This record gives sequence, C-alpha cells and structure tokens, in this order.
Amino acid sequence: MKKIAIVGGGVAGLSAAIYALRSGAEVTIFEQFGLGGLASTIDKIENFPSYASVEGWKLCSDMAAQAKALGLKTVRQRVLSLERSDGGFAVVTDKARYDFPAVVVATGTSHNKLGIEGDYVGHGVSYCATCDGAFFRGKPVAVAGGGRTAVSEATYLADICSEVYVVTPQPNFSAEDKAVQALLAHSNVTPLFNTALYEIFGDGEVEAVGLFENGQSRRLTVSALFVATGAAPVTDFVRVEGVKTNRGYLVVDGRCETSVKGLFAAGDVTDGSLKQIVTACADGAKAGSFAAAFSATVK
Amino acid sequence: MKKIAIVGGGVAGLSAAIYALRSGAEVTIFEQFGLGGLASTIDKIENFPSYASVEGWKLCSDMAAQAKALGLKTVRQRVLSLERSDGGFAVVTDKARYDFPAVVVATGTSHNKLGIEGDYVGHGVSYCATCDGAFFRGKPVAVAGGGRTAVSEATYLADICSEVYVVTPQPNFSAEDKAVQALLAHSNVTPLFNTALYEIFGDGEVEAVGLFENGQSRRLTVSALFVATGAAPVTDFVRVEGVKTNRGYLVVDGRCETSVKGLFAAGDVTDGSLKQIVTACADGAKAGSFAAAFSATVK
Repeated sequence: MKKIAIVGGGVAGLSAAIYALRSGAEVTIFEQFGLGGLASTIDKIENFPSYASVEGWKLCSDMAAQAKALGLKTVRQRVLSLERSDGGFAVVTDKARYDFPAVVVATGTSHNKLGIEGDYVGHGVSYCATCDGAFFRGKPVAVAGGGRTAVSEATYLADICSEVYVVTPQPNFSAEDKAVQALLAHSNVTPLFNTALYEIFGDGEVEAVGLFENGQSRRLTVSALFVATGAAPVTDFVRVEGVKTNRGYLVVDGRCETSVKGLFAAGDVTDGSLKQIVTACADGAKAGSFAAAFSATVK
Repeated sequence: MKKIAIVGGGVAGLSAAIYALRSGAEVTIFEQFGLGGLASTIDKIENFPSYASVEGWKLCSDMAAQAKALGLKTVRQRVLSLERSDGGFAVVTDKARYDFPAVVVATGTSHNKLGIEGDYVGHGVSYCATCDGAFFRGKPVAVAGGGRTAVSEATYLADICSEVYVVTPQPNFSAEDKAVQALLAHSNVTPLFNTALYEIFGDGEVEAVGLFENGQSRRLTVSALFVATGAAPVTDFVRVEGVKTNRGYLVVDGRCETSVKGLFAAGDVTDGSLKQIVTACADGAKAGSFAAAFSATVK
C-alpha cells in the first residue's frame, strides 16, 4: 500500500503531505513542535507567488489545514534517528519505533545566531535578504558575516538599500574573488573588517548596532541587521550512509530522491540553490509525489 | 544595470518577474495573450500549497497584480525568435527587436489534442491527473493514450478512481515494462487496445465516451476523460544551439540556467520531473533571481 513518513512539519513537509495524500497515500508527519516550521515565524511574506503580502502563521496554517483535510496524521514526538530497516526505513522517536517503505526528510536548517538578536528578530533583524530586503528599500542596513553567504546577501541588498555595511571580525572576505568584486563594485557598500558586533539598539525596531573596532566602540545607525553567519542543516538524526554533503546537507536528484531508493528530502535541508518558501513547496511536491509512488512498489 | 526579459507570462514567468523585480532588476515580460497562461484556464486548483481550493484565474491574476505592483513592464507582442547577440540576447517580435543581457524562457507546453474535447475541458476533460484526479475519487474514468504519460497518469488514477479505462488505438503500451506492470497490478484498470475514442457524451459535464473497436461502436460510462497523448514544449522560436533535448524541452541546471550563460528557463518548457504550478513558480523564483544577478555582471 502507499504509505510514507515525513520528518519535519514546515512548508516543505506540508507540501509533500498534500501531494502524497492527493495521490492516495497514507501520510504521517513527525513534528515535535507545531506545524509550519520556520516560515510560520516570519512577520510578512511578500515573495510567495500570488500573495502581495501574507503573515507567516497564516500561510502555514492554511497549508496545515489543507493537509489535515486530506487526512494527514501527525505524530508529535521527537525523532532521534532515521535508519534503514528491512524493506524500508525505521523512524525512531523518543517514544516508539515506526516502519515505513519511504521517507521524506524535511527538517530544514537552523540559523547560526550572533547571540545578541533578542526580540529584534522580525523587527529589523533578519536571516534572509531575499525574503526581507525589500522592506528596507532606500534605508541603511548592516550585514553580519564575512563568508560566501554574507557577500551574496550584501550584494543583493546593495541594489535595494541606501548603504550596506558588512561587519566581520575577519581581516577580509572568505568568498570567491568574483563575488567579492561584484559586491565592492557597489559604491554604497562599506566593509568593516576586524570589527565585532556587540549590541543592537532600538525601541522595538532596530535603530543602530554597536561596533567594537581597534579597541574602540561606536554606534552605527542602520534600519536592519541581516545576520549571515551561516546555517546548519538538521540532519544529525539521519543515520543513512552516503546521502549527506560534508556540511550535512542531503543530496537529491531532480525528483528530490537521495542516492538511497525510497529516501527523499525537500526544502532547506537539501543541498539546493535558493532557499525560499516556494522552492521548499516545490521540493515537497516532488518528494511527496515520488515517495508515494515508490512506496506502492514495496511489498 | 540589472535588466532581464522573460518570454511567456504564465505562472513560471510571473514568479520569475516577482523575484527579479524584488532584487532590483528592470523586468519586461513578452506575452501576446493575457498574463496567467495555462493555469489561468483551470477551473479549480486544490494542490497549490496554502489554498484548499482556488480558481485558476484568481490565482494568476493575484500573481500578475503582485508583479505589476513591483513595476513589471509587459510587451504584448508575439516573439518570433530569441537569438544570441553581442553581449546578450535579442528578442525579435512581430513589431520590433529588443536586446537584453539575460533572458528567462517560460513559454510552457501545448497539449496534444484529441480534437473531440469541445467545451468539456474543465468539465470532465483534463490534461493532468495529478491536478484533477482527486475530483473524481471513487468514480470511473477513461485515459486517452498508450505511451509513457498515459501509463503514468492511469497508474496515478488507479489509486483514486473506481475504474480506469486506458484507451489507445495502439495494440499495446509503448512504455517501460516496469511502469506497465505497476499499472496492470491494479485490478480496477482495463486497457482497451486497438480502440479509437471518437466522441464525448454529456450534458455540460462528461457522462460517457464513444469507442470504436473491431468495427463496432459502443458507449463507455465515465465521469472524466484524461487526455494523455502528450504535450510539446513551445520552443521553436529559441534559436540558440545546444540548449534543447531532442523533444524540444530546454535543459537547465539546479539554478534553472541552460548551458548558455545568461539564458534561463522555468516551468513546463524545461525538461523537469513534475509539471505543477508550484514547481513552475519555484523554477521562476530561481530563474528570476539568478538571471537578475547575471545581468548585473554584463557591461
């Protein structure tokens, strides 16, 4: 019979559920917190096609309702491991062990934190320029980080914001020359090397950040701080050989299947190119459809 | 400066526009008909994540409004050819020639027609089982076609519908053995070989189809007819070497870029695995983002 497990109840997992359920599969999502994941915490989403503007919780609760109406089962337990088993995979939680012929991993990533964000997340602190850059059109912003992600986020923001300060304790950028050149070609970009970010100032919304540089501290007026110090995929629990990159992302093909038959992945947890809600949903559609079809072939 | 052209104003093109505009690019869509494309003609869409049910025209007009609010320019001309030119690409229409450093092709496919569909499209006649199968849960349906697509559509429907008749003038299926075996493992599937479909009967909605078999005609009661005789990508106008499969689909990488730098493609026109509105939108997000970024690097 068609029967799949999905680990992770964010937008990728919910989209996978919708597609698998519509194809006639029995679907169980394992999610220890509420359905919706990271996207449900976003204040305003303006780049999901068809919504001029939508609150994250609204978009996610609509997706969850859509999946539930189709018969979604949810297991609110923490998944400790995902292992191969006879004829499929074992999902081992803190309460029990479950067997499935096919599994979709959609556990996303967790952002590396600066540790000073406090309550400013969604109020000027963002972890995604493509998501939130447009909210700060014509305003000065800071980017925290000196790696590939920080360079790419700052380049994106340079076309939108009045000034972009890239703050890193490193003495230079650790990214491709070409990417760094493209960034520095913008006259409104100022790199601040050898500089630490130690505080955020503001009354509810970000108004400035505190910098520490050459033994001196100073305030820099900005409307937003984009934290681009990296993110890590949540895949420690995946105990299957040969499916991860050395950074822990899951490698999938165009059908969102890993190199292990029956094991699929969708959304931010994959080694994909653009980490957006709509791309996570599309991954989910593929992973859910093909996982359901695969499960039907297992006796 | 960031400046791109998008050929085709369906959901893939609109999503590409939204992402490129948000990243600060100037975006022109070439579309001879109204914005929205094929999706705008769909009666009810129930598999776009977050909408339990939405009319195609509504979903598409919301996407078009979202892109227009960001500054989308539309050129309502027919594109005759897309060619390489100095420093980029030339979009040649029936009225003029336009030059762009980067182009996204999002012209979709046109379904091969049986020629008997008349006004039943959206009223029992469908070209997509994944899209519309769930509307005929527990009901008898027919699939027209004997190739890979027909076998896959019929297999999908077998888990949902009471009876699935696969009607083809061929003496057997032209598809992979394994796919055919998976189809025939369903007891509710009946192949009707050497059989022609010559008419659709019904009062507004499909009630039966007319078959012609061994010199005899007969009526077969079904609630829907899924036409799966193939589709062809709209790429004749693409005069760029080495970017198409032998069936005319555009080959893209994980960033939706073809092997020619600056030439991107999104949606049904690509050689992709699952042709859905949400996957077209995700392709558009990638193609629009990366095309805009590429255009900024061209002098």
